[in-house]
Amino acid sequence: MTMAGDLQAMFAPRTVAVIGGSRTGGKLGAVMARSLSTYEHGCALVNARHPDPAEGVYGSLREAVAATGRTIDLVVLCVPANATATALGEAHDAGARAAVICSGGFAEIGQEGDEHQRAVLEVVARTGIRVLGPNTSGFVAPQRGPVASFVPAAAQLPAGPVGIVATSGGVNHALAFALADAGVGISLAAGLGAGVDVTAPDVLEYLATDPATEVVALHIESVADGRRLLEAVRSTVRAKPVVALVTGRSDVAAFARSHTGALATSWRTTRAALRQAGAVLVDDDRELVDALTALSHLRLEPAADPGIGVITAQAGPGLLVEDRLRTDGLRIPELSTTTRSRIGEVLPPLTYQHNPVDTGRPGAGFGTVLRSVADDPAIDLVATYMLTEPDAIDLVSAVQEAGLPERAPAVVTLGGPADDTVEVRDQLHKIGVPALSSPTATANATRALVADARARYRGAGGSDTTRQVPPAPAGTVDEAAAKEFLNTLDIPVPDSHVCDSREQACQALAELGPGVAVKILDATILHKTDVGGVHLDIRTESQLADALDALEGTGATRYLVEEMAPSGVDLVVGARRDPVFGSIVLCGLGGTATEALADVSVRVAPLDAAEAMTMPDELAGRALLDGWRGGPVLDRGEFARVITSLGGVLLAHPHVSEIEINPLRVTGSGLVALDAVLTPRQEEG
Amino acid sequence: MTMAGDLQAMFAPRTVAVIGGSRTGGKLGAVMARSLSTYEHGCALVNARHPDPAEGVYGSLREAVAATGRTIDLVVLCVPANATATALGEAHDAGARAAVICSGGFAEIGQEGDEHQRAVLEVVARTGIRVLGPNTSGFVAPQRGPVASFVPAAAQLPAGPVGIVATSGGVNHALAFALADAGVGISLAAGLGAGVDVTAPDVLEYLATDPATEVVALHIESVADGRRLLEAVRSTVRAKPVVALVTGRSDVAAFARSHTGALATSWRTTRAALRQAGAVLVDDDRELVDALTALSHLRLEPAADPGIGVITAQAGPGLLVEDRLRTDGLRIPELSTTTRSRIGEVLPPLTYQHNPVDTGRPGAGFGTVLRSVADDPAIDLVATYMLTEPDAIDLVSAVQEAGLPERAPAVVTLGGPADDTVEVRDQLHKIGVPALSSPTATANATRALVADARARYRGAGGSDTTRQVPPAPAGTVDEAAAKEFLNTLDIPVPDSHVCDSREQACQALAELGPGVAVKILDATILHKTDVGGVHLDIRTESQLADALDALEGTGATRYLVEEMAPSGVDLVVGARRDPVFGSIVLCGLGGTATEALADVSVRVAPLDAAEAMTMPDELAGRALLDGWRGGPVLDRGEFARVITSLGGVLLAHPHVSEIEINPLRVTGSGLVALDAVLTPRQEEG
Repeated sequence: MTMAGDLQAMFAPRTVAVIGGSRTGGKLGAVMARSLSTYEHGCALVNARHPDPAEGVYGSLREAVAATGRTIDLVVLCVPANATATALGEAHDAGARAAVICSGGFAEIGQEGDEHQRAVLEVVARTGIRVLGPNTSGFVAPQRGPVASFVPAAAQLPAGPVGIVATSGGVNHALAFALADAGVGISLAAGLGAGVDVTAPDVLEYLATDPATEVVALHIESVADGRRLLEAVRSTVRAKPVVALVTGRSDVAAFARSHTGALATSWRTTRAALRQAGAVLVDDDRELVDALTALSHLRLEPAADPGIGVITAQAGPGLLVEDRLRTDGLRIPELSTTTRSRIGEVLPPLTYQHNPVDTGRPGAGFGTVLRSVADDPAIDLVATYMLTEPDAIDLVSAVQEAGLPERAPAVVTLGGPADDTVEVRDQLHKIGVPALSSPTATANATRALVADARARYRGAGGSDTTRQVPPAPAGTVDEAAAKEFLNTLDIPVPDSHVCDSREQACQALAELGPGVAVKILDATILHKTDVGGVHLDIRTESQLADALDALEGTGATRYLVEEMAPSGVDLVVGARRDPVFGSIVLCGLGGTATEALADVSVRVAPLDAAEAMTMPDELAGRALLDGWRGGPVLDRGEFARVITSLGGVLLAHPHVSEIEINPLRVTGSGLVALDAVLTPRQEEG
Repeated sequence: MTMAGDLQAMFAPRTVAVIGGSRTGGKLGAVMARSLSTYEHGCALVNARHPDPAEGVYGSLREAVAATGRTIDLVVLCVPANATATALGEAHDAGARAAVICSGGFAEIGQEGDEHQRAVLEVVARTGIRVLGPNTSGFVAPQRGPVASFVPAAAQLPAGPVGIVATSGGVNHALAFALADAGVGISLAAGLGAGVDVTAPDVLEYLATDPATEVVALHIESVADGRRLLEAVRSTVRAKPVVALVTGRSDVAAFARSHTGALATSWRTTRAALRQAGAVLVDDDRELVDALTALSHLRLEPAADPGIGVITAQAGPGLLVEDRLRTDGLRIPELSTTTRSRIGEVLPPLTYQHNPVDTGRPGAGFGTVLRSVADDPAIDLVATYMLTEPDAIDLVSAVQEAGLPERAPAVVTLGGPADDTVEVRDQLHKIGVPALSSPTATANATRALVADARARYRGAGGSDTTRQVPPAPAGTVDEAAAKEFLNTLDIPVPDSHVCDSREQACQALAELGPGVAVKILDATILHKTDVGGVHLDIRTESQLADALDALEGTGATRYLVEEMAPSGVDLVVGARRDPVFGSIVLCGLGGTATEALADVSVRVAPLDAAEAMTMPDELAGRALLDGWRGGPVLDRGEFARVITSLGGVLLAHPHVSEIEINPLRVTGSGLVALDAVLTPRQEEG
């Protein structure tokens, strides 16, 4: 764990030196030297083999320091893996506090590389020097820092509000270029590479307090310390939005490992955890650019479900926007009668004046329409689309006349040839209005703003520590003991009797029945149904006798006789330990089809009730939980109590590895746990 | 039905005239006149109120023809809805054969507009003049025709290989501009608007034979004549690819109707039908641009599942490409040992040399890598990504050295600032290699090429007419009669007996049992389970007596006693009549969860077995059909026989409205239909 301040020497250094640098040629050390040559605080080159002090190429870093009289904070190491640790030690001894290691050839290639990596880490541990990489194309800090990148075009990147922290140096650069193309500059773009020292949380902490950064882009291929990453995201999001792109939806582990040496983290769990920590999740690099364009200019107030007002000058593209927003579950509320009468005064009668508002060919009244929709109390964000028609309307003036962005948050999209639109876009950016260029970009930008507002409304969540967690049974326990434990957690279970004999079973039927379930009670049997260990709807003594005969045939000596639950919809809920993120909770719908779909919602524990209540709505089959065909409706509050309790059990009890309720039935009279399994943690070693 | 040739007068006219045109001001007629002013075959203006023959503005079209001595093929009508029909008649009388109607105010606004629309259609029917619109922003034909658009920037659109036919004029223009921005020009971009005369099939037929058009873009909000559209797509796809974007995934019907006056067509069915006809389906406007960029330069050979070779100079963006391709089910096969040894000779040893190939920083060997992967017999398409590093590599030369595109189809992506990349992109386009700019674009372009190759491999499908369809029962029939009909179709059903008495039921149990299903037999009861009309697993005479007692209690007098099917996975399959596309077939997984997910695959009938076999693999829950947890595997061939038979029934028997088998059980010994319903067609009137 380190102080964010440490990275000042990396990202805003006094003089920089390139170790292995040269003034000529096309090798890494030469390309890097060219990128850094214009750095305002100076760049020295060190080349032990071909020193040329007259040209400012020194035989060692110490020599460079002596000759220039400058403090060199940062070294960029363009030397092979086997020479890196030594060069790093020398850099520290000469006063450097940060280093970029460009080469590959470390842990990602196996044993030989492992040794080089260990040597580097020893220097880091001994000296405290901070290392970016290995296997990174470096970083770019156009405003306050250097262009320490071996991609030449990086020197052209404009300064601006986006801070990028990417696992991949390639994604880092590709994203920075794409942002520039969208008219958005960067404060810092850092590629972590193998990330053996400086990791995403370090850079997040740096960016959280960096005054030039308004929004953070996070690209993730693998996560070393899940909890620390989430803490860094959570604290960054309090100050500025974080937008995250996670690689690894499909199995790309082999290639990914070759690149960073790390094992792939679960894509689903990583995304769920980042979203829970407040990040806005995107699906691809272009959606990332749209989200950053929007969030670099504005943030909505925290809200459970912001209302979007869609205004379009062309019906077809407006429909594409509306279709996408509705498909993604965004709210496009009806406009008030006041708003409709206002816009009715300026629009031709034939246009569609609901929401979306179709203005037809935009004219003098467009600003009035913008302002009226922005003023509607149901509208939290205005999203507008038009094709460029400079003869018909001056869009920037119309936006300003409408009092945007002060009056209401807005995203503005102008379709058309770049020649006509780029200047308008840049003017809109200058007045704080995110400007985009296509219907899909409009929808992406809108969705990102809403996702951020929803995340902040939910809050960072976290500890629900007021509740005492009762002691959990140790070791492997049977269904009866597991349910008794659920009972102590206030999770409803059916009335039941544990029976050691036929007589007790008959007695139980008399007390509970008719209509009971009779099950084998044996902690060693995980799948009771598979061994014929479950008999349902036993109504008579003779049916009970048959059932007990059958159970005895499977070797049973103890039985659970239990009242039958009413019919309903079955959920599976549980808590388990993720190797990266620690205790997580999960829910899904019961039944084979849902299992085959892997339709699961995940959260990191602890989580509060508000967060837990959002889980069922993430399921593809969520319609089943809201009174499907006259069935029961899931009480979200009761569900949240169950989920937070299960998470709490894992947090409170290190000896429990996993707890699963399967099924947890949604009935007309509430939830009831029909079966449960507690799995003890394996002893270490 | 019309000849494609008819549209020459529309899209490549001799002289054009603007009715309601003027030389000054910002109204539609003035803007349109400016757009058309440079048309090489000339443009006359007609303005009855303000004629000015000295300025070439005439009082009537007849006058214009007389004064100029030119044949005016096309008129662009910039007059209000109530004056349109008259102007259209006059245009025909003066020799025009085509018209664009820009105004709105027709059927989309209700009764008054309906009358104007009827008047227009009467002129069309009487004269044969072809009409584009109403409510369209026109069309652009940069190469052979005019710029008949009131979006001024349309005049800048470059000529090129893409033909666009869009429901929406706004989408039409937005797409054309986005293509231009991607370095791709258009042959024709036509917005249909309300499409009262010229519809998408008309324009498709025109584009199919237009020599300047290499690929067709189709944007759809609603479909008037489904069968004609599919026929037009099918025949176009034989000559050139069709890429389709369909609006309406969510409920946007209200706004859509305001715009074209048409009811929304089922998004799902429209997409399925277009895909079946051979179109490449995309999800948004940007994916549409990527697909068109790729398909305007090349088409893969028809193949069931083309192999993709991914080459990247940066691991992170390459991983984004790989992840997306794998997620979308594309095949990235292992490279041969020959290929690997060839690329091993030119690449540094640390790079990942499987598929994807990670070249590291590209250098002199890059062309060799391209060529080696292109030559690999497992590879049908090379997809490559790199960040611009002009000092390290001349990408165009490397592509040419590798013998692309002649040696193998390839898509090339160059990330970086537009200043560095646009020229390279344009050079690549000139040599026939589609060039893109982001990882997502690479994946989209690749997927589009593969979708086209797969569609052509499947073939246009169509009639499976060799099989005789047996006569279908008339009217509403009970389960026994429905199953008897299935039996005549060679669809397996369980052995059963129809029983009119308890004695017959006992006899049936003796013959079939023990372990039978006993069901009420009554054609008027659609949901037998809901009325307690189904009793399963009856093994003894006393159980049978109980079951019959219960059934009699519901009013039953006839019973179906049937052997129980083995356990398995339940499908729902059926055929019904879609109002737009006619007979369609559907399949989904049985069970409430799948129903709540609306996880259904749809095709238009007739379809051949190869097409039907692809349906189960579209289901989200498809894993259940391939031996999930030791369960049965669906025999695709047997499934296809069932589906094509059901489609055939509707095609052969106009009196059948719908036939559904629910469930159709997948068992270890094949498919068996456990229940079926035939719905007769309602009498008209």
